[in-house]
Amino acid sequence: MKRLFLNELNEHFDEEVTLSGFVDSIRNLQWVQFIVLKDETGRVQITIEKSEEKNKELVDIVNNLTVESTIKVTGKLIQSPKVKLNGMEVIPSKIEVTSVNTGELPFNYKDISTVNIDTRLDNRYIDLRSDKNILLFQVQSAIVRYMREYLYDNHFTEIHTPKFIAAASESGSEVFQVKYFDRDAYLAQSPQFYKQMALAGGFGRVFEVAPCFRAENSNTSRHATEFTSFDVEFAYINDFNDVMDLEASMLAFALEKVKDLYGEKIKEVFNMEIVVPKTPFPKMALKDIYDILEKEYNYSVPDSEKNDLTTEAERLCFKLAKDKFSSEFLFVTDFPAEKRAFYHMRNEEGILQGYDLIWRGVEITTGAQREHRYEEIVKNAKEKGLGEDVEFYLDFFKHGCPPHGGFAIGIDRLTMLLLGIPSVKEAQFLFRGPNRLTP
Amino acid sequence: MKRLFLNELNEHFDEEVTLSGFVDSIRNLQWVQFIVLKDETGRVQITIEKSEEKNKELVDIVNNLTVESTIKVTGKLIQSPKVKLNGMEVIPSKIEVTSVNTGELPFNYKDISTVNIDTRLDNRYIDLRSDKNILLFQVQSAIVRYMREYLYDNHFTEIHTPKFIAAASESGSEVFQVKYFDRDAYLAQSPQFYKQMALAGGFGRVFEVAPCFRAENSNTSRHATEFTSFDVEFAYINDFNDVMDLEASMLAFALEKVKDLYGEKIKEVFNMEIVVPKTPFPKMALKDIYDILEKEYNYSVPDSEKNDLTTEAERLCFKLAKDKFSSEFLFVTDFPAEKRAFYHMRNEEGILQGYDLIWRGVEITTGAQREHRYEEIVKNAKEKGLGEDVEFYLDFFKHGCPPHGGFAIGIDRLTMLLLGIPSVKEAQFLFRGPNRLTP
Repeated sequence: MKRLFLNELNEHFDEEVTLSGFVDSIRNLQWVQFIVLKDETGRVQITIEKSEEKNKELVDIVNNLTVESTIKVTGKLIQSPKVKLNGMEVIPSKIEVTSVNTGELPFNYKDISTVNIDTRLDNRYIDLRSDKNILLFQVQSAIVRYMREYLYDNHFTEIHTPKFIAAASESGSEVFQVKYFDRDAYLAQSPQFYKQMALAGGFGRVFEVAPCFRAENSNTSRHATEFTSFDVEFAYINDFNDVMDLEASMLAFALEKVKDLYGEKIKEVFNMEIVVPKTPFPKMALKDIYDILEKEYNYSVPDSEKNDLTTEAERLCFKLAKDKFSSEFLFVTDFPAEKRAFYHMRNEEGILQGYDLIWRGVEITTGAQREHRYEEIVKNAKEKGLGEDVEFYLDFFKHGCPPHGGFAIGIDRLTMLLLGIPSVKEAQFLFRGPNRLTP
Repeated sequence: MKRLFLNELNEHFDEEVTLSGFVDSIRNLQWVQFIVLKDETGRVQITIEKSEEKNKELVDIVNNLTVESTIKVTGKLIQSPKVKLNGMEVIPSKIEVTSVNTGELPFNYKDISTVNIDTRLDNRYIDLRSDKNILLFQVQSAIVRYMREYLYDNHFTEIHTPKFIAAASESGSEVFQVKYFDRDAYLAQSPQFYKQMALAGGFGRVFEVAPCFRAENSNTSRHATEFTSFDVEFAYINDFNDVMDLEASMLAFALEKVKDLYGEKIKEVFNMEIVVPKTPFPKMALKDIYDILEKEYNYSVPDSEKNDLTTEAERLCFKLAKDKFSSEFLFVTDFPAEKRAFYHMRNEEGILQGYDLIWRGVEITTGAQREHRYEEIVKNAKEKGLGEDVEFYLDFFKHGCPPHGGFAIGIDRLTMLLLGIPSVKEAQFLFRGPNRLTP
């Protein structure tokens, strides 16, 4: 069964075609009936002349048809410059109603900007039908596709690590607890330990795209209890510049593909421009950023917060990156190590060998070289007071484990920024937060 | 940083190269030292002449080197027909030890066939280093890559559906319970409802690759509490033959790619032949299979079990498919509906509009056309005694939902059968079962 999609019709003029989709609108006039048929790639007009004897049955069908039902139409596709919708129409010989909309929709999805987000999410199966949402998830699918493709083409192996873990090991808090037969298990907050295990196990380059679970009882536009993480880890790096450069190249590759495929549509539907970044991305030390923000952007933070980027500083980094580097991206480096996880490598001055990546004023990635030296990682774990829960992890470094690093990108947040959407609630297929578990 | 992989060396003879990997073996002879360096793509010999003055430092390094440490070697790559290992060697000018194996490995991973599976899994970071496991996960990565590629190229959108669900809705049992702030949540057994939601939401074709969670307290070679499912769902089908045919084409495409890339290596390491299947795959009704098994294969089951394929009947289907159709695959159709989920479509005689796919004697898929007619799906749910937990799902069919169907493949089981591995315990990156939550 070869399905013909509505964005492929240009190649089929004067042919008999069979098309399927939702009924987007019906106009039933005195002499003629118009249906706009819609699928996930486009729309086309179906035109039925009422006066023609052979159309009697079709006219009856359309008289009883409801919008949002689905139909299958067979007919002749012709060029019709007078038709506003793409200058073409289908003159049907057969219409089959394949499913029926039995009543009024819960809300008008054609103007979701006026609808409360909870109403939208409660009825997500209707909400998804909006042109914005159809495009959103096609774009999300494409950006993930091409990030993966970049990695496959660079010798990466995709892995699937377990989400059940035995102990709340990585951070100790904010972990969901599961009843696991006669004991407790926990849900992995990230595949961090396991992607590193792959490298200790002889895989030089791995990645994973999978859900992560965070029991954070916070309701911001950026957070969810469950999100899809794009995790990358690779060995034989010289330092964390290699990690930044690979991430930049991967993003540039994927954004270029997305622009080619969807750039015009994104402009039209979201009024957003996809800017394909130049690589490598600019890099600045945290301290230098605060210096510039103070001197040139009239922003200063109390010393107590200078160990990390504040949300406002992140936001200003968009302007800074554009002004100084003509870039939407900025790598921020030289964080003090104390606030970061024990597995991040630090140099002799205690400076973290890692970075945050800021895109359009929001942090989208934390990346780093990892500590791969057994004595050092054991010492770091002890300093953080981590006990036997991480012993299995420390073992990975006993019998040879190459220098390595990696990063993670939340694809919901990435999509949100790409399309200028205000919240991850809309960028997730089905949002999950402290107060939302349905539908 | 462009890394040079050991399977790319043929293009670099007489060049200075920098190579990284694990020390696979060391031979320290009277006049010469040999190291075999290994990465995830191959092996190469490093040769150090002890007598040469300039090698003094290198000789010292190798004297202190332990196998399974990682090193970075710079030197000249030369063709050496006398070298058994690929007829080449590297004459190093520099060796840097990048990580140190500090002691004896927990077991000898070079002969895992003699090692207890639990010892292997307890030390999976060592176990992964075996040639079998490196190849296994490269092949798994490739087959998933190319199944996805087939779908992308056929207008499918990848989605990421939530794993947290509000109620143990789909089957009522065998669902893991999570402490979710001040209430309970559950872990999705499959993305079934949500991939159908996408179709009700206007996406014609979707797929997802993600973990599924099953609280089954069973210990077989095929079951795990968590596994990676490759889920496909698409609309505007004529009947479930379209579902079978798409699955067959997707598998044939991916298997051909895997054979091209890894066929020889799989033959060498696993002694398995990849057979690229012809499409469409053969199809047989359950009743006809039992008739033939009884008449020609001397196998009969009691009437009470004739409503489903027994494990032994599955096994015999491999032979049957080869004998009758020269195929490793067989679609089994015409199951009675009573044993299947309420969302599978059935015809007027109560025959399920779905199938099982048997590959090499094991079921790898259940697929079906779904019930998309609102009245019918409501009736089916009632018959199964399902209450308000599925109401949100029944809503999907109220406002138009096209005819559709889909299937799911467990990629661990697929890998297991592809490579002739006895258990999913070995085909998962890190197995999870009722008695295993670590490492």
